Amino acid sequence: MTAQTDESVEHRRLVIAGSGIAGLSAAIYAGRANNDPLVLEGDEPGGQLTLTTEVENYPGFPEGISGPELIQNMKSQAERFGADIRHGVVETVNDDEQPVILNISNGDTYTTDALIVASGASARTLGIPGEDELMGYGLSTCATCDGAFFRGEEIMVVGGGDAAMEEASFLTKFASTVYIVHRREEFRAEDYWVDRIMEHVDNGDVEIMRNTELIELHGTREDGVDYTTLVRHPEGYPSEKLDDPETETFEFDVGAVFYAIGHTPNTEYLHNTGVSLDDRGYLDAAGGDGGGQTKTDAPGIFAAGDVVDYHYQQAATAGGMGVKAALDVDEYLEDLEQNQATTVDTDVAAVESDD
Amino acid sequence: MTAQTDESVEHRRLVIAGSGIAGLSAAIYAGRANNDPLVLEGDEPGGQLTLTTEVENYPGFPEGISGPELIQNMKSQAERFGADIRHGVVETVNDDEQPVILNISNGDTYTTDALIVASGASARTLGIPGEDELMGYGLSTCATCDGAFFRGEEIMVVGGGDAAMEEASFLTKFASTVYIVHRREEFRAEDYWVDRIMEHVDNGDVEIMRNTELIELHGTREDGVDYTTLVRHPEGYPSEKLDDPETETFEFDVGAVFYAIGHTPNTEYLHNTGVSLDDRGYLDAAGGDGGGQTKTDAPGIFAAGDVVDYHYQQAATAGGMGVKAALDVDEYLEDLEQNQATTVDTDVAAVESDD
Repeated sequence: MTAQTDESVEHRRLVIAGSGIAGLSAAIYAGRANNDPLVLEGDEPGGQLTLTTEVENYPGFPEGISGPELIQNMKSQAERFGADIRHGVVETVNDDEQPVILNISNGDTYTTDALIVASGASARTLGIPGEDELMGYGLSTCATCDGAFFRGEEIMVVGGGDAAMEEASFLTKFASTVYIVHRREEFRAEDYWVDRIMEHVDNGDVEIMRNTELIELHGTREDGVDYTTLVRHPEGYPSEKLDDPETETFEFDVGAVFYAIGHTPNTEYLHNTGVSLDDRGYLDAAGGDGGGQTKTDAPGIFAAGDVVDYHYQQAATAGGMGVKAALDVDEYLEDLEQNQATTVDTDVAAVESDD
Repeated sequence: MTAQTDESVEHRRLVIAGSGIAGLSAAIYAGRANNDPLVLEGDEPGGQLTLTTEVENYPGFPEGISGPELIQNMKSQAERFGADIRHGVVETVNDDEQPVILNISNGDTYTTDALIVASGASARTLGIPGEDELMGYGLSTCATCDGAFFRGEEIMVVGGGDAAMEEASFLTKFASTVYIVHRREEFRAEDYWVDRIMEHVDNGDVEIMRNTELIELHGTREDGVDYTTLVRHPEGYPSEKLDDPETETFEFDVGAVFYAIGHTPNTEYLHNTGVSLDDRGYLDAAGGDGGGQTKTDAPGIFAAGDVVDYHYQQAATAGGMGVKAALDVDEYLEDLEQNQATTVDTDVAAVESDD
């Protein structure tokens, strides 16, 4: 067998796909463990946290810290311990053989002994005017992160599933009134959550705006959300029926808007690998107790953060799982070296007997 | 039924037993969720982390932060969001009925709707001269935390179990030589770890000192560990045979000492409850994916940090689990209020039918 040397292929000990809290926490530990991590930073560098202006609930910062600053701190910390951070989106993973082969969007190819999938989840957005400008300035995709900034304000929640009900219910702690804007008559959420919301409606904490959609946000980064433009149609999905005479367009004042229309884990590039994904694209990690909690079904591929966690999705939980992944990888790489040492001995023996 | 009012009993919505990283992280989230947490700080306030002079691997502090300062930050942060932190060690937990009854070492009694067990684990120590003075200053109980401070130094690891082998193996990344001091001839560690260590011995990275015990540490907080006093007896357990003529006492120079003689989870007070403990005293939490990962087998009792985690035991992993516990408790308390609302209705109906 002749090994063909391709100069555009770089071999790595560990690649971490993603530069959010999970990826950078893994990189800090992997660097300290001398595993020479390459962190591939995708098109949302820093991940979800950079969408949050002020992070008040990451343990360790009593006065809070801005999302981008916390990410920058972790980046510096990872680099201090030897992490190599480069731009790149993993397009395909080939795990048919070891080492795993990664093809990157810029055309580069890496082979790697271990991969930590920490590419996160992206909150779905509506793509409406005002959205890009106000994200993090009155518009948020995380009630737990940002709800407390809007004590006493009228808050709009967009969505009709479990997440929307849960966020709306949580936000009643802070809001004068929570308005749930839902494009259909019926909620997708399970009865448990609908019952809970109906009690809030009875108490006057929540008002439901059915068959209604948000089509524009108005405000400034300085003063946050000023008002919104909504559309309503008696049969639902009004934004698809803007020319229908029954569709009404109106302005509505709120102090903050929370989107709860779902997240999509960034795991498409794993579809043809041994990694198991659930029907929403979340990745199955081993979990349980003891070591190896971040292992996936594919040897050498580990996972941390929002690609796995569809429930808690907090900076501290993602960070904790990133640390676990780095420690799991360290054990895996030690085992691998042991086995390779044994295999080399066997290969030499095989070659000798061939002669 | 006549309710007897005992003025020394205080009812709480949530008690968190422990003020280490797990307890304080839970308190930050519980405070923000308006669950009015009472944190009971035991005899090791701040937990294991306060034993570490400089924490370099907690994500978010690129230059590192001292253990006590990180704990103080989290305390301030928890208090900012309404946590009430008091001294107290939980002596007994009675979960026969709801709410759970907690008896505290100072004689106080609390009833609580929910309890987060975050009382940590204590590293075992030898109780020898020099230990208290040098802990955190050249003497450590955590190789992952502190190993990198001793690059190029000779490092002693005390212990003969898996943890000692693992720490010794990890420390070869930094040490010029690692000396394993073990009081018997044979190791308790599993073969896997013994094999690994023997390879390091073959490579000259590790030297094993069998039938040897550490009996004194010499040094200063300014300059760290200077040298140690060791005893050796050919049949092992030399410190029990100090008067035996075969026992030799000698001085030995090293730059750092790591104890790896085990941890004991602080969970004795849970023995007569519905909480399951394993034979080492670690607590079984639900784990898995999705919500409720920190639930124990006892309703209303949740757990986070080193009382559960016998493997990773890092600040960031304990913090992540503390956050999960607070979020799990929030759901539990909401359910409880729902059920109590229903029960009160039923009670009223029952009282009315009694009349």
